[in-house]
Formats: sequence, structure tokens, C-alpha cells
Amino acid sequence: MKRIAEILQAEPSLIEMTVRGWVRSFRNDRFIALNDGSTINNLQCVIEPENHAQDILQSINVAAAVEVKGHLVESQGSGQRVELQTSMVKILATADPEDVKKTVLSPKRHKLDTLREQAHLRVRTNTFGAVMRVRAALSFAVHKYFQEQGFYQAHTPILTGSDAEGAGEMFRVSTLDPKNPPLTEEGKVDYSKDFFEKEANLTVSGQLEAETYAMGLGQVYTFGPTFRAENSNTSRHLAEFWMIEPEVAFNDLAANMDLAEDFMKYVIDYAMKNCADDIEFLEQRLENEDKQKHAAERSPMPLRDKLKFVLKNNFKRVSYTEAIDILRNSKPNKKKKFKYPVDQWGADLQSEHERYLVEKHFECPVILFDYPATIKAFYMRLNEADDEGRKTVRAMDILFPGIGEIVGGSQREERYDVLKQKMHDMNIPEEELWWYLEMRKFGSVVHSGFGLGFERLVMFVTGMTNIRDVIPYPRTPGNAEF
Amino acid sequence: MKRIAEILQAEPSLIEMTVRGWVRSFRNDRFIALNDGSTINNLQCVIEPENHAQDILQSINVAAAVEVKGHLVESQGSGQRVELQTSMVKILATADPEDVKKTVLSPKRHKLDTLREQAHLRVRTNTFGAVMRVRAALSFAVHKYFQEQGFYQAHTPILTGSDAEGAGEMFRVSTLDPKNPPLTEEGKVDYSKDFFEKEANLTVSGQLEAETYAMGLGQVYTFGPTFRAENSNTSRHLAEFWMIEPEVAFNDLAANMDLAEDFMKYVIDYAMKNCADDIEFLEQRLENEDKQKHAAERSPMPLRDKLKFVLKNNFKRVSYTEAIDILRNSKPNKKKKFKYPVDQWGADLQSEHERYLVEKHFECPVILFDYPATIKAFYMRLNEADDEGRKTVRAMDILFPGIGEIVGGSQREERYDVLKQKMHDMNIPEEELWWYLEMRKFGSVVHSGFGLGFERLVMFVTGMTNIRDVIPYPRTPGNAEF
Repeated sequence: MKRIAEILQAEPSLIEMTVRGWVRSFRNDRFIALNDGSTINNLQCVIEPENHAQDILQSINVAAAVEVKGHLVESQGSGQRVELQTSMVKILATADPEDVKKTVLSPKRHKLDTLREQAHLRVRTNTFGAVMRVRAALSFAVHKYFQEQGFYQAHTPILTGSDAEGAGEMFRVSTLDPKNPPLTEEGKVDYSKDFFEKEANLTVSGQLEAETYAMGLGQVYTFGPTFRAENSNTSRHLAEFWMIEPEVAFNDLAANMDLAEDFMKYVIDYAMKNCADDIEFLEQRLENEDKQKHAAERSPMPLRDKLKFVLKNNFKRVSYTEAIDILRNSKPNKKKKFKYPVDQWGADLQSEHERYLVEKHFECPVILFDYPATIKAFYMRLNEADDEGRKTVRAMDILFPGIGEIVGGSQREERYDVLKQKMHDMNIPEEELWWYLEMRKFGSVVHSGFGLGFERLVMFVTGMTNIRDVIPYPRTPGNAEF
Repeated sequence: MKRIAEILQAEPSLIEMTVRGWVRSFRNDRFIALNDGSTINNLQCVIEPENHAQDILQSINVAAAVEVKGHLVESQGSGQRVELQTSMVKILATADPEDVKKTVLSPKRHKLDTLREQAHLRVRTNTFGAVMRVRAALSFAVHKYFQEQGFYQAHTPILTGSDAEGAGEMFRVSTLDPKNPPLTEEGKVDYSKDFFEKEANLTVSGQLEAETYAMGLGQVYTFGPTFRAENSNTSRHLAEFWMIEPEVAFNDLAANMDLAEDFMKYVIDYAMKNCADDIEFLEQRLENEDKQKHAAERSPMPLRDKLKFVLKNNFKRVSYTEAIDILRNSKPNKKKKFKYPVDQWGADLQSEHERYLVEKHFECPVILFDYPATIKAFYMRLNEADDEGRKTVRAMDILFPGIGEIVGGSQREERYDVLKQKMHDMNIPEEELWWYLEMRKFGSVVHSGFGLGFERLVMFVTGMTNIRDVIPYPRTPGNAEF
């Protein structure tokens, strides 16, 4: 059976076809707008009310499911090229209009908050149907890109016995009695009696394990859920989110930047080509949403312009040290318009600084690199100190318009002695990451990788401004419903 | 830079090329077997020892990384079509032979147990390189198949506030003080003070959430990690494994079987075509392993024959009731050869029964369907009782040679009242799954889906007999290392 996305591309024909879907609207006892989830567009099914029993007509309600038979004709009305001249309507499943009225299925504009509370139904709305189709297209594009480039997906573990990675607060996973856990003689919880015979947590990143696989398979990537137990109730944070982490043997930082830029352009281009209707709809939605906002909070440009802005520009590569100079001498800094004034070399950059660089100064996506060692993770490759004795690491962040940092990566420290010293200095326990260190003994080549929070990418491409609206069932502090 | 998989397919040429990889062996100061993870096959790099400094020659050790330059010539030796006439060798990273000797990188046969203990290194061996490449190919094939069929991946949640699904024991996820959790007035752990303000667990299945997405997008699938906190220390169970769960609106059980059969054949065929060298190697490995085993424990047929057996046969569809009759009257049952004799209608089938049906009776893959309602989950579609008043549900299991059940699925109960009653009868708390039930009010159409444990598929295609050997870092009772 053909789905509606395909039917809407077909030519008028006298051949009878059967279509199944859900009713989005039913006007004048004559026009059924039918949707089956394959596209944002509905198939208009035109019926002659006098040919159908009254109980059938009365059951063609919003959210009910029907099967229709008919043949495709050129549409008489505007808004669609073809429509279904419908000879038969069969009710597959009803929906009580009184019940529907209480839900987000009712045909009116609903607040995003309300939609979140009915996350089991919201995918049946135009906005969430479009977002989730774009999400799925981006997800496939990720796999397709890496496949074409000769990468292997490595399914790194979700449960980890190490809490040493330092990327954020972790969730503890246990099967011990939650109220009266067994204790050791010293009075601590005795994790040797737990399921894994040690304390276990949910992973914050698959990178360290992915590195071990890059040393075997050469080019690998992860694409799986990661977790942060941080009490951040913001529109940009989730406790559970999906992350993409490629890792490549023999790549230095410059090759890592090349890979990241090529990858980002590929997946965005894929979505634009394969989800044109959905993205057009989402652009309109964003424009409507922006009308309610203060000028300063609006998107810097229309959705598709923003996506094209990334595709058509080379990403400008700028060292952290240069960026600090630019920011220090920038108008908003001198006029004290930044919330966080830029003064000292060594400080971390804020979103306002990143956006200034992208949107005002360079007017293109920016890759910042060679960050101060003190503000970055232990596993990043240490550079030689500069003339002023300042220590940097081969880190890179990609900055995008409207969003700031979207990708973070680095060349990894491949030298056994240097890594051992850094782990010691930064209090990373060797007994937990012995394997990560040991790997540096056996043909430990230069290698690099990066991480992309998948939901950030989906936000960027869909124009949704709250991260809870780009994942089916968001997990945030106080929320694990569904 | 070309990778070795590609170079081995190339024609001899005078053009100089550069290759990087790890040394697998170095014979007679002349032949370097170089591997970069892109293929199981090594590139033979032939050097003239007199052209290279002694310290270079001494550093070309197993597991060291080198860059070589040279041009491709027809191979003089047997075993490869082309080899690299090498003019330059650069040591990129060393490996101390004394250290290598202590690891599974040393060039001899290692026990699978030992390899598991060095899971950070085992991917650099022939067997695990092959297994993990096949795993990655199967993973991509899953996405490719569903993409081509118009499915959308739905990223269902890993953390769930519901523990009602009944598919198995769950892991608790918490950020409460593990030793002194806050208590309610009744003296219970006060989960309202936990991160999610309720008790949270790791998911055992994304099916219920996937069903909600099928009602919006029509055809969806999940592919993500799932968890079982069961103390099963067997070669077939993991605490953390990846699951694939398609869910399709309007599909009845027969359509579900069609989908599952088509899908299984597609992904196996994809692996055979895209991993021919790896699978050939793994077939040989299995043959060697089987030589150590008693006849009864050996694989029923060589690896590739077994895969072709699945591809070329139609899956035989047999009702549970028929299967019980066949088993009851079978020779091994009459001769009491089954460990679990088959007697009563209503009993669950064991692996020995499933394998008898596939390997002896039908000699083809089998789909059993319409199981007794009492041994299956609450969400399965209830059939009309049969003439003898026996109640069955529209469940199906796919049985494969050597392994038994590999896929389990069902048509789902779409009727609100019937589902509500079943939830009540089977003690499924409505307050946790209100959304699952409520979905049945709004155009609740016939729909079906199935689940495939991804590691079971990888075992089947690679011939590995312990599930710990088909995932990078296995999680089992007492083991969350790495």
C-alpha cells in the first residue's frame, strides 16, 4: 500500500487505490484531510456525503482512523496538486470528539508546555511530526556519512564502572536494597555486593572507549545515549541525550577540524534535501513564534537562511588567543555590553562571546582551537608552551549562529608519560582508567575526535528553541514520565 | 590517504603511496604485515633491510605503528595479489616486545577468556576485528533497511519512571545519598526527593513508547540499549544489550511476519555481501573451535551454509498448537530425549524444542504464532478462544538454527476495554501506563511490531558462541570493567 508522501507525488490516474491514515480535519461533510505520518502534507479525500451512511459520516472525526478507496484526480481546490476522488470510507478506529477536545489532538494552536505534558500524543501534531521526521533524517544521515567514509560504529558501554571521566555529574545504577544497603566494616555502602560488584554509573561519554576502538579499527564513531545528573532546568540541557563521537587514528587537530566541518555540512545538507517540506513548515512556525518575542530574542535569520549560511561558508579557524584579543577589543566589550566582560587570557568563553564572533565579527561558522590547558579535559594533547609560557591543549569548539558551541573535540594525548602526569595532576584515578593509559604503550598514534550533542543539532536544523521539544520523551530534573 | 582495504583491491602502479597502520608481524627483516583496521587482510610491505637504519629495523615490532611509502607491485609470494615495494619506513609509535608479550597483542592463539580480560586490546586481534566490523555492518544494514522502507527511527527513553512493563528485572537509577536516603513518614525511601522526583529505572524495552510514535508517524523503529538486572551468568545473556524494535500502524500479525522475514534476510544478506572476507575468516575460526568440542555441541552446519539456509528458505509459519502436536509426537519426545518432555498445551517451549522444529522437523527457519495468552505479555492482541475454549494471543517467535528464538513480536491489543481488563488482570498499574492505555482512545488502529536482540543477530552471523564476544565491553553480573 502506498503512503501519502508518495501518493502526493503521483500523477492522476483512474486506477483505484486504498489509503489508510488519521483524520486531521473534515470539512462540509465532504473534505477529509488525511495524514499517515509519512509527510506533513495531508491527502485531501473528497467524498459525496449522500453516498455514505450517516453513522459513517458521524465517525469521521479528528484523530479517527479511516481506510479510503478512490482514484487520484487533479485537485479542484488550491493548496494541493492532486486529491482522492473517494468512493469508499471505512472507519478503522474512532475518536470521541469530546475526548479529543481535552487533548493536543484538537485542531487548534497548543502551547509547547501543554504538548510536553501529552508527549504520547504530540507526535500526531504538525510541528512534532515535522520535528521527529527531521530528527530521524538527521540520524540516518549521521550513519550514512560515516559509512561512506569507512567508519565503523562502536557500541560503547552505557553502564560504566568508572566515574573518572569528569565530563559531569553521574547517575548511580544499583540493585542493592535502596533503604538498607549492605555496609562494609568501615560503614560505607558495600558495592562489592551490588550487581556489578562495584559502584556503577551511567556514562557521560563513550569517547575513552571509542579511542581504544580507533586503535584497532582505525576510524570509529559512537551514536548512543549519554547522561548528566545535573540539576540544570534550562532549555538547552537534558539529563538523557544522544551523542555522536567519531574518533580517528592518525588524525591531528587540523584533520579533525576538516572532518567535523565536512560532517556538519553533510548532515545539514541531507536534511534540507530530504525534509524540504518539513523544514519549510518549521521555518514558518519559527517566524510565527518570533513575532511573540522581543527583537533581541529572535532568531538571527530565517531557518533556511541559517542552514544555508553554514553550508556555503568555510568555517573560520581562529585560535583561542586570537579570539580573546578580538573580544577584548570588541565594541560590546568596551561598551560593557557583555554580561561577562572579557579581560584575562585563560577565561572560558560564554555563549554571548561565541555568538558575537560568529554573528558579528566573522559572519561565518567559527572553529576556535588551542584552548588554555587549565579549562579543558585531562585527555587533550598538550602543546608546547608559547613565548609567554602559556600552556594550551589541542582542543577545538565549533561555534554556530544562534546557538554558540555545537561541537567540541580535540587531538588526544597519545604520549604515555605526559598522560600519566596529567592524570596525576588532575586527580584522575589510574586504577579506574588503567586500560586507557595502558593503551598508550602499544603503537599509540596521534588521534583525534569530537562530540556532537545530537539534540543540539536537531534544534539547530528544526529551529526549535527548547531541547525538550526535539526528543520524544525528554528527561529533566523532576521529569521521567512516560 | 587510502586505507588498506582499498589498496588491496588496487592495480600495481608506479605511483608512490603512503600507508599507515600497525605491524602485525615482521619476518626476516624484510616483510612487514601491516593492518589499519579497514580489513582482516594485511598489506605485505617488502623492505630492503640494507636501506634502513638499524634502529628503525629494531622498532618494527608487533603492535608498533609505522608509516610506509612505496608503490604497489604484483606479489611475488602467495597469499596476496599485491604488495608494497617499500622505500621508506617511519616509526610513528613504538611497542616494547616485552610488554606486548604480556598481552593478547602477542602473535599467538589466546583464549577468549583472556581476550575478555583485555577488552581494550582485543579489537586489534583478527577475530575481534572481524566480529566488530561485521557488527558495524549489521548495524548499518538495520538503519538502511528501515530507511528504504520509509521507517523513522524513534529514540525512545532509556530512563523510565515506569517499572511496569514486566519484561524483566530492572536497574534502579538514583542520585540520592546511597547510604542514608531520605525517608517518607511511613519509613520508605522518599523518591520524591530523587533527581526525577520518582523512582526511575533503566528501560527493558522501548516498545510501548514506540507504539505511541507508530500512531503518529506510521512506521517507526528503535535501535538502542536495553537492560536486564538478571543474575544470569550464561553465554546468551548480557545486562546491557542493544535492541531493535520496529512498530507499524495498520500491520496485523501476518504483515508483521512478512516484515520480520524480509528484514532478517536483508541484514544477513547485507553482511554476507559487505563482509565476505571477515565471514570467511570467522567460518574457519568456528570450524577450528568446533574441533575441540563434542559432536553434540558443534554448530549444525558451516557458518556460511547456515546463513544461506536462512536466505534461501521461506520461513515456515506454524501455530503454537500445531507445534505442540508435532513435538508431542516427535521421536525425541517419545524416547524421552528432551530434557523438558512436551506434554501439555500451554507450556512454554524450550530451546531444545525450538531447535528440533527448525533443524530436524521443518529444516527451515520457523515462525511460531498464536501462543497461549497466559505465557505472553499483557499488551498482545487477544484472539477469540478456540473450539476447546483455549485462549491465545497474536504473538510470534522466529526460530533459527543453532540458536532457537531470535525474534519475538506480536500484534498489539488495540482495544481500550480489552487492554484495560488485561492490565487489571495482570497487575499492570494503570497510574504508570495511563498514557499507553489512553492512546487507545484516539484512532487506535491495528498495529504490530517485534524485537530483535542485536547481539543475538551478531552471534548468529559471526558464529561466536558467547554473547560477551560480540559487544565491545560486555556488562554481566560482577563485570563493569572499562
